[in-house]
Amino acid sequence: MRTQKEIIYAEGFEEEIRSLLKGGQTAALSERLKNQHPADIAQVMERLSAKERIQTFHLLAPGAQAEVLSELGTRVARQILSSLSVGEIAQLLDQLPMDEAAQILSTFRRRRTVILQALNAEHAEDVRRLLTYSEHSAGRLMTEQFARVRPEWRANETLTHLRRMNADVETLNNLYVLDDEERLVGVVSLREVVIAPPRKRLRELMNTRVISVTPETDREEVARLISHYDYLAMPVIGADGRMLGIIPVDDVIDVLVAESGEDILKFGGLEGGVLDQPYFTIPLGTVVSRRVGWLLLLFVAETLTGTVLRFFESELAAVVALSFFIPLLIGTGGNTGAQTVSTLIRGLALGEIEVKDVWRVIRRELLSGLLIGTVLGIVAFGRALLWGSAVPLALTVGLAILAICTWANTIGSLIPLIAQRFKIDPATVSAPLITTLVDATGLAIYLMIAKVSLGL
Amino acid sequence: MRTQKEIIYAEGFEEEIRSLLKGGQTAALSERLKNQHPADIAQVMERLSAKERIQTFHLLAPGAQAEVLSELGTRVARQILSSLSVGEIAQLLDQLPMDEAAQILSTFRRRRTVILQALNAEHAEDVRRLLTYSEHSAGRLMTEQFARVRPEWRANETLTHLRRMNADVETLNNLYVLDDEERLVGVVSLREVVIAPPRKRLRELMNTRVISVTPETDREEVARLISHYDYLAMPVIGADGRMLGIIPVDDVIDVLVAESGEDILKFGGLEGGVLDQPYFTIPLGTVVSRRVGWLLLLFVAETLTGTVLRFFESELAAVVALSFFIPLLIGTGGNTGAQTVSTLIRGLALGEIEVKDVWRVIRRELLSGLLIGTVLGIVAFGRALLWGSAVPLALTVGLAILAICTWANTIGSLIPLIAQRFKIDPATVSAPLITTLVDATGLAIYLMIAKVSLGL
Repeated sequence: MRTQKEIIYAEGFEEEIRSLLKGGQTAALSERLKNQHPADIAQVMERLSAKERIQTFHLLAPGAQAEVLSELGTRVARQILSSLSVGEIAQLLDQLPMDEAAQILSTFRRRRTVILQALNAEHAEDVRRLLTYSEHSAGRLMTEQFARVRPEWRANETLTHLRRMNADVETLNNLYVLDDEERLVGVVSLREVVIAPPRKRLRELMNTRVISVTPETDREEVARLISHYDYLAMPVIGADGRMLGIIPVDDVIDVLVAESGEDILKFGGLEGGVLDQPYFTIPLGTVVSRRVGWLLLLFVAETLTGTVLRFFESELAAVVALSFFIPLLIGTGGNTGAQTVSTLIRGLALGEIEVKDVWRVIRRELLSGLLIGTVLGIVAFGRALLWGSAVPLALTVGLAILAICTWANTIGSLIPLIAQRFKIDPATVSAPLITTLVDATGLAIYLMIAKVSLGL
Repeated sequence: MRTQKEIIYAEGFEEEIRSLLKGGQTAALSERLKNQHPADIAQVMERLSAKERIQTFHLLAPGAQAEVLSELGTRVARQILSSLSVGEIAQLLDQLPMDEAAQILSTFRRRRTVILQALNAEHAEDVRRLLTYSEHSAGRLMTEQFARVRPEWRANETLTHLRRMNADVETLNNLYVLDDEERLVGVVSLREVVIAPPRKRLRELMNTRVISVTPETDREEVARLISHYDYLAMPVIGADGRMLGIIPVDDVIDVLVAESGEDILKFGGLEGGVLDQPYFTIPLGTVVSRRVGWLLLLFVAETLTGTVLRFFESELAAVVALSFFIPLLIGTGGNTGAQTVSTLIRGLALGEIEVKDVWRVIRRELLSGLLIGTVLGIVAFGRALLWGSAVPLALTVGLAILAICTWANTIGSLIPLIAQRFKIDPATVSAPLITTLVDATGLAIYLMIAKVSLGL
């Protein structure tokens, strides 16, 4: 029995691979890889250079290659396959479940058709069908290899049937009870069948309150439903009412992990897509080009601050001390807005908040913005006095903080709701975008208050 | 068969409850709640006011009360229980699995002992034991109700045993093979037992390569391992080698969802703890007090910018135009830093990056910072010229952007790694903190470059 420490963090496993590769000790490396879990091999491979990765892959036992492939990030898997012939690719993909084969194949453009032709005919048809669903849909994640049973079967017959169908299904934990038209009428767990009196019919054992999704359902929604209802698999039902497949919970976990990684990236002002691949596998040029795009957009938005400041040039020249508070004021506004945006994005993601709650949310955030602004405004007023500012300037700063916090809080709650309303992922309207918008508007608020209260 | 739409989004379910409550139609409401899934009732209850919530709870059928309770957020569950007598609380907690009873009981301080005394003796002992583990540990999540089998049992005997033990275990999907000293020697799935030849012994069927955790393992690590190895449950092994329990995958999914919500909050500069409860259930006063704490900390850090600006007062007075670029420069630096922080936090969370990679990471981020800075610096130089700035000022701005981006990128990669090294959650060192730190240092960089290049 090994604990996770001995396996995942196998001290020096990575270094060992590198040094065996460098020394050309291919036989020793091949041996070393034999007893490792495919998920661990995949994790280490993602840390190697592209060349080392391909070398290592070729040293895996033929059976292990497919297993490791299914654990690798899609782009890395694609990169490795690109070094192989169409025949070899097809042979590997034939060993993968249809959903994983489809996922990897979707990254091929030019060679997709020839690879599909080289696949086992039945498998090719399955994969081709999955590829008709869009990328983040339930259809792409589902497997058609689920256990189909009939309502009139008795428990003991069912067990006999299962022994026969075993090889064809991905999981036997849940058995799906279908009527003559392949419509799902209930679900029964293997456990219930095993412990039931042998002559009992499935009709009497099955649970008829079953939640299902359609192939078009977004994968995030599937994840939310599985976590909401504690399912081990989610059935997928077509438009004609026929049951098409299931999405097993382990695929859903992968979705949750990927989506939460993507959310983190979006929060930092990065698109998910390409950058949501293992850190060391993304070429530096790709990173820079993807990051610069978003930074330039924010840069252009941020130039608005310059426009605002130039508009108030004479006021700033008259009281240089006004400029000392600029970063403090817009920084605080940005931080306040970022807090609200986070709260809203979390609430929307967990289904606690819906678009129809807009007024309830705005009322709540406007009020908390006022309260937060009052506290911070008083502190800012005191701090400005301590810095030796005159009372009118200190008052200007305090009032500006109050106004900016209230404004940032309100706009920070509104924008994610608007995004959700127009089916844009609210995480994309992330903290950097809000803070950039609050910067320019906050400055205008500050300098207008200064203009009035200082009589400039 | 109902689809998810009909159940979760049951149009007007919430409004219906509210109006039935208002009209005092308790019998009708009680009837309306009968056919709803407990998870759905819980979700709607979290949107009601505290008073409405308690009223609704009392209208649930006695059996449904425990089911709904286990779906509610911990604090909401506690709030509802607070309206009940100790005897009633104990009766409800007795119906919950031990891990959920422990979770809810952990929110009670004063009454914990009396409630424990009122519980069923055996259940109380289980719950008491779980409460000795710390809050985010594997021990808290585990159930001791797993299926224990012996290596010498034959497949058919095992099925007979399972029929007898059925009621005592939470899941039968995996059977845990223990030796005479209760040490885990292998795992076998119910599926394998069902399809195996009846006389086969479990010793020959079981998988001996099993990953396990200890009760002290952090729950996030458990989630990572379950998703890494695609397990349906994670065995928990004590220090003496005895198997203590299992953590089922549905608990892990709840952890993943909660942690990803907490990450989003941390990204916005909010502590998880209290605020990681359903949006409409958190009292406004709690929200404000929790938010103000962090904002004040950032405010104090941000006052450094004022200190820097006052230090360069004469330069700012000499060239007022210098101040026009302040928000643009520090905003861009903050955005660049936020991107790097996000990338690092995601990579650390997914195990793609480890602390030992510090030099590899810094080299990578320093280089990409230089590249990004060069692109943005050129754009900024051009923009400044277009705004009618003199060439030396435009050059100052361009150089400052280059320097600030490189600096922000490097520091943004270093700080999450340092946090991880000292076992602080890197997400806590979130975007707002980095941008605030980059603000002050960025200003100093800008004004020093200005001083030299403009000869001030």
